[in-house]
Amino acid sequence: MRKVVVVGVGETKFSGAQERTNTELFTEAAADALNEAHLKPKDVQALLVGNVLSDFEEGQQIVHAFIAESLGLNHVPANVYDGACASSSVAIRDAFIWVASGFYDIVLVGGTERAASMGTRLGTQTYAMYSDRYYEYPCGITFPGVFAMLAHLYASKYGIPLPKLKEQMAHVAVNAHEYGMKNPKAHFQRELTLEKVLKSSMVCDPLQVYDCCPFSDGAAAIVLASEEVAKKLTGKPVYITGAGQASAGSIGGQKDHLPHLVARELAVKQAYAMAGISPSDVDVCELHDSFTIAAILAVESLGFFEKGKGGEAIARGETKLGGKVVVNPSGGLKAKGHPVGASGAAQIYEITRQLRGECGETQVEGAKIGLTDTMGASGSIHCNLVLQR
Amino acid sequence: MRKVVVVGVGETKFSGAQERTNTELFTEAAADALNEAHLKPKDVQALLVGNVLSDFEEGQQIVHAFIAESLGLNHVPANVYDGACASSSVAIRDAFIWVASGFYDIVLVGGTERAASMGTRLGTQTYAMYSDRYYEYPCGITFPGVFAMLAHLYASKYGIPLPKLKEQMAHVAVNAHEYGMKNPKAHFQRELTLEKVLKSSMVCDPLQVYDCCPFSDGAAAIVLASEEVAKKLTGKPVYITGAGQASAGSIGGQKDHLPHLVARELAVKQAYAMAGISPSDVDVCELHDSFTIAAILAVESLGFFEKGKGGEAIARGETKLGGKVVVNPSGGLKAKGHPVGASGAAQIYEITRQLRGECGETQVEGAKIGLTDTMGASGSIHCNLVLQR
Repeated sequence: MRKVVVVGVGETKFSGAQERTNTELFTEAAADALNEAHLKPKDVQALLVGNVLSDFEEGQQIVHAFIAESLGLNHVPANVYDGACASSSVAIRDAFIWVASGFYDIVLVGGTERAASMGTRLGTQTYAMYSDRYYEYPCGITFPGVFAMLAHLYASKYGIPLPKLKEQMAHVAVNAHEYGMKNPKAHFQRELTLEKVLKSSMVCDPLQVYDCCPFSDGAAAIVLASEEVAKKLTGKPVYITGAGQASAGSIGGQKDHLPHLVARELAVKQAYAMAGISPSDVDVCELHDSFTIAAILAVESLGFFEKGKGGEAIARGETKLGGKVVVNPSGGLKAKGHPVGASGAAQIYEITRQLRGECGETQVEGAKIGLTDTMGASGSIHCNLVLQR
Repeated sequence: MRKVVVVGVGETKFSGAQERTNTELFTEAAADALNEAHLKPKDVQALLVGNVLSDFEEGQQIVHAFIAESLGLNHVPANVYDGACASSSVAIRDAFIWVASGFYDIVLVGGTERAASMGTRLGTQTYAMYSDRYYEYPCGITFPGVFAMLAHLYASKYGIPLPKLKEQMAHVAVNAHEYGMKNPKAHFQRELTLEKVLKSSMVCDPLQVYDCCPFSDGAAAIVLASEEVAKKLTGKPVYITGAGQASAGSIGGQKDHLPHLVARELAVKQAYAMAGISPSDVDVCELHDSFTIAAILAVESLGFFEKGKGGEAIARGETKLGGKVVVNPSGGLKAKGHPVGASGAAQIYEITRQLRGECGETQVEGAKIGLTDTMGASGSIHCNLVLQR
């Protein structure tokens, strides 16, 4: 297995509804990533794109084929990946395999989405289809409902009074906005207070509006290269040293593991093992805070804190700059935004820049090892990647 | 790179609208494939599924996650592939990389579709989105229109009078039905005559009803294993020795190559080069006869016949049993049927059984080398695979 290096990253600003197509958004991010690596489109040997909504939202199927054409790639093999919110992470894991195996030396991979442009009604309809269509979706379980139930289950299982848990959850949102304010590409760049979170309107008890991430438009792209080729392209190589992926299907089928998600725990175990590291080695982590409770579950399943103790650790500031492990210095899905099929690639964008020391005010001092974490649907598809400089 | 072996294949009967879900269809095909290889679901290390319509038709997104759960796989990494009609071929090519690279030893891969159940109206709407959504689909170009134009261009470029070309095209359909009649899993099992083809109703001049393949329900699945593992699982190994994939985007962007499709010519060149063979080495080929003219273009681009001469070669019987190269002994898309995301896997099902000598009346005597060929959308995604015993 060859070593695989991130040699360039690019990202659009994440935003609400805007006018560019998915092809235009991806092209912007890809151009930045290629420029960083001093590469031209004709140097790219394969294209892998994460995208979820282009068909229902934009009326364009197989958007990857049109992206390849638009970018002026040389008729390269192109695939699209739909792993729900984990789409571009599974695309990147696959690109990692393509390069590590020796099949390709230079691969362009990322994701694009117009999730804000889609609007709430069509979005809710479409996301519902990511639940089990026969046994769960007809019961009316949409994702806020799933995570609200997980919050209740978590409170009950670990004996945490619900008001206390809600305050811990609110800290997730407040931290995210604190960092999002400092990220010029974040969707939300405004301060949030605990009081504002706890007074916001109810979505699905106990989740209030500020417990939920937005849906955003945006794209992120990465160029991966073999170590040998990377030496000519970058003086700041960031290696992908671990990759894990697992599946779980329906939420009901995971009942023995809930509120924690079994696919995450299996995927991150694979990623740590491949990289030969343990959770305590991780300096910085971009994780899937689609809901604030999801972030609490994540910091526990990723091994940073004991089960039932993640919320209080977050409330104590242990996931902030200077804490035990820095979580979501980009602002995370909650503040940076969640362009569904691009969110995993955006995590790699942030971690790569952290490991290169390019993150200014939100730089994790001396960061050497980073982890990304993306969850698709009701924990149905999960992917983790370890990056090291 | 490790050698990769097809150790088991399975396929449902292809049919019109029926009541099983995509998960149920795939599970039936997968169970047959696993049984052939004496494997249990827990032995499978990864799942790759080609599927195009499950979202729009069945209301189920990320069907692969639910298939993994339903089959009782052990939370394995699972991906879904949408490369239009080439979906399961690109899934198989990716599975080939996963096994060849040493990442996995046993991978389940295939495709499933309810393309007949979808019905014509919703189907036509959905397929239209596989064209360029901004510059081609709004002009009203659906796939019969694209291939009708290619037929006119072909007739004009090679100086073939249209009535003569139509008769050559009709031979494609007649041959397909002759073999489909002998395939118990074919969608159509009835004889067709040249007269019937040429008297059938017009779809899009010069394409008549019998120039067009049906949309079918069905699934096909393949188990791939590393050579070392395969030795314990099968006494009749069939190796994937070549794989090629290319992209082309819009039909307008291919204008310098039309009527032939540039992605096919690039993909098959890769596949032949990897296998170290030339077109004349191919004993049996399953190719993408979505329209009869598509089959004529294919036999030329794959290198079996000179450009402009494919139609007359087919009319002379050179692609039938005993001919220069046997094409679509399964009945092809035209008679076996076209469950879109499963069609590429169904080609591997047929070629594997041909190379094992299991095809009875339609067996290609002494077949040693087989080729599959699938085209997605307007030639936007193309994939070829070479199999050898």
